[in-house]
Amino acid sequence: MQVPAGPKGTRDFYPEEMAFQQFLFGKWSETCRRYGFEMCDAPMFEHLELYTHKSGDEIEKQLYTFKDKADRSLALRPELTPSVARMVAAQGTNLKRPVRWYSIPRLFRYEKMQKGRLREFFQLNMDILGIPGVEADAELIAASIDMMRDLGLTSNDFKVRISSRTLLEELFTAAGLDRNSFGQLYALLDRKSKIPQSLFSEQMLQIIPDQGVRKKVEDIFNAQSLKELERTAGTTPSIQNLYSLFELLGYYSFADYTLFDIGIVRGLAYYTGVVFEILDIKKDMRAIAGGGRYDKLVELYGGPSTPAVGFAAGDVVLGDLLRDRGLVPAQPPRSTVFLAAFEGTGMSKVISIASKIRSSGISCEFPFKLGQIGKQLKSANSARSIFTVFIGGEEEKSGKVKVKNMFDGSEELLTEESLPGELLSRLNRICSQDLRCAL
Amino acid sequence: MQVPAGPKGTRDFYPEEMAFQQFLFGKWSETCRRYGFEMCDAPMFEHLELYTHKSGDEIEKQLYTFKDKADRSLALRPELTPSVARMVAAQGTNLKRPVRWYSIPRLFRYEKMQKGRLREFFQLNMDILGIPGVEADAELIAASIDMMRDLGLTSNDFKVRISSRTLLEELFTAAGLDRNSFGQLYALLDRKSKIPQSLFSEQMLQIIPDQGVRKKVEDIFNAQSLKELERTAGTTPSIQNLYSLFELLGYYSFADYTLFDIGIVRGLAYYTGVVFEILDIKKDMRAIAGGGRYDKLVELYGGPSTPAVGFAAGDVVLGDLLRDRGLVPAQPPRSTVFLAAFEGTGMSKVISIASKIRSSGISCEFPFKLGQIGKQLKSANSARSIFTVFIGGEEEKSGKVKVKNMFDGSEELLTEESLPGELLSRLNRICSQDLRCAL
Repeated sequence: MQVPAGPKGTRDFYPEEMAFQQFLFGKWSETCRRYGFEMCDAPMFEHLELYTHKSGDEIEKQLYTFKDKADRSLALRPELTPSVARMVAAQGTNLKRPVRWYSIPRLFRYEKMQKGRLREFFQLNMDILGIPGVEADAELIAASIDMMRDLGLTSNDFKVRISSRTLLEELFTAAGLDRNSFGQLYALLDRKSKIPQSLFSEQMLQIIPDQGVRKKVEDIFNAQSLKELERTAGTTPSIQNLYSLFELLGYYSFADYTLFDIGIVRGLAYYTGVVFEILDIKKDMRAIAGGGRYDKLVELYGGPSTPAVGFAAGDVVLGDLLRDRGLVPAQPPRSTVFLAAFEGTGMSKVISIASKIRSSGISCEFPFKLGQIGKQLKSANSARSIFTVFIGGEEEKSGKVKVKNMFDGSEELLTEESLPGELLSRLNRICSQDLRCAL
Repeated sequence: MQVPAGPKGTRDFYPEEMAFQQFLFGKWSETCRRYGFEMCDAPMFEHLELYTHKSGDEIEKQLYTFKDKADRSLALRPELTPSVARMVAAQGTNLKRPVRWYSIPRLFRYEKMQKGRLREFFQLNMDILGIPGVEADAELIAASIDMMRDLGLTSNDFKVRISSRTLLEELFTAAGLDRNSFGQLYALLDRKSKIPQSLFSEQMLQIIPDQGVRKKVEDIFNAQSLKELERTAGTTPSIQNLYSLFELLGYYSFADYTLFDIGIVRGLAYYTGVVFEILDIKKDMRAIAGGGRYDKLVELYGGPSTPAVGFAAGDVVLGDLLRDRGLVPAQPPRSTVFLAAFEGTGMSKVISIASKIRSSGISCEFPFKLGQIGKQLKSANSARSIFTVFIGGEEEKSGKVKVKNMFDGSEELLTEESLPGELLSRLNRICSQDLRCAL
């Protein structure tokens, strides 16, 4: 048999790739924890209807669907929001509001492969449910900005562009556009930067046949600021709401990271209010993440009326960005301490020392076959160890072991009994200075 | 619409259930790290052939299978070992040996629901590849014991029962049993405790029609010790190997946790040497985890000959056990610090203090609507906060804020500037004593 490959659009995570996932997921969790979000998760597949009920039968094209042996129609989850809404709906009014949840779901979309898009990927999801006010939008956008900052990114790397579906509704209605064409228009505007200008114009013509209305809609999208829109549309509730949002973001000291952009509409049908995207400044405004209000979804699934705002960032695009900016840390040690044994040393001795070191919380390994010291040192290197401890040899008579610092090459003698404690204090010192370090 | 339920055999992880998963996975990762294992992962689904090539077409009955839109036959992964073997095989001789990998895969089996078994579950997987010697078996069994100990379980809770497929082969061959019936016999013996005695006898009769051979096989399974088997079979290579294994486990100081049990055979076809199970002493010897040698699997997938030993423990049975023993910790705080604001305090002040506290690494939240203090305190309780900080009111004039310790009810006044530092030092003190604590 030729070695089989994994399915198209999926990834094998060898330890090196996995170390990056662990780094990213760890940072994500850390930001969410600091903002008081609790982790949740849902099944990896759901009844197909959960997705078609929300998005129509069209969505099936992008899903991995299957029937189980009892003929239930199921689908691998393409996003977590429907599951979150279902879980909140199922609790009725029992859940204390606000609900502040995050998750790091593994997701699946059957779509054309391209840079930054795979068929199996991960997302950070953050949601605040139960709060109608713009304070929740601000908190969520602030958390998304801090997530990026925690990864080492700055306001020179990304910007959060913010708009509002209700503002667009107000402006479209004032322009004389038919309500029924809003959904199509959102989807088209969301794809604007990804399709040729000619195709865009053609589709605009289809959705808005009336030239006068079309001109007004185009004018709306040429507006450069809230002030400019306010001059033509007056101070609408949505404009006031956006002013409040930017004021609140200023309180977080995040004014530098945010701006109004009428061009942000988001493709999904379920957004109902503020929408936003995090864009890569350097790479042609590539979208890194996005989110917005979805005040109707919990109700759509039979739950109580529940205002909600959510946000998602994918691991693939963000991974590309971090690699591009040199922000991916080195792979940590497999074992902090590697035990090497001189000839004549028994396994009994090696294992008992390893057990003591491990009991103190320090990771440790030893060669399964004690042999040439040179070979053992190679293993210590491939374990990316910080210390190699040599057991046996000359030093054994005095009850000592030789300890080599693999970062700077220095060596010292320590008694066997003091080993765990001494290693621990050296590691605490090194770890406060060197990022490659770990217990 | 009535609120839809998740698919049969799956779980919704609300924050309380998720806190347990995070606790368990954290402990699992911690043990693996200490033993020098690196995390890996593989796609959530594989080509169906990966499983049928190893286990025959029969396995399809227990799988969630589906075709993608390009008509590829895929299956949700029922275990990670085939993916691990495929990944190791794909690297040929490039991977440095030993490979010490662990993973916490989410797995899927379409099987009858019963206590301790769901259709969607998680496992801890640990594997050492590239080492033929019993030292790897000992290391893996020791790690599995420490995993249980790290969860608070003792030798009064569980035992590791160990046997060997090659020993069984030697004994069966000496008893005159046909090699072709080994596989069936392993599967039957593995189910012995789960089926009625009459059914067991009936199936024994089918697999071994010859009464004399059957009697000898029954005698083998009545043996109480390695010594007893040695008296009838002589000192076979497998018996010597097992003696070495128990000696090594003694070096780890784990003799109390392990014993020889000829009745441990494991159901899966791919085991080739030492096999073991962790059994719950109190609950009728329920199996909590198991593993063994699978020296042929990497080769089966077209890779180089690679000896291997692996181990897996599921989250459902282990979760039941920990709950049963009262070893599940309390849910940690959603936010360590809750900010409450007296009337007249602006959001500007609240958010700027929250940002400073969060910047120091402490989790913090505040009410999105500032209103009655009583209501805010309820929110602080539902956030399971350790400190409530009261902003505004009387103390504002002196530039101070009131800080209430929610564990003991004590209150003190602190200056706004010193707040992050003072909270941090108090938390470090509390956290060293109280397990409910967290930053």
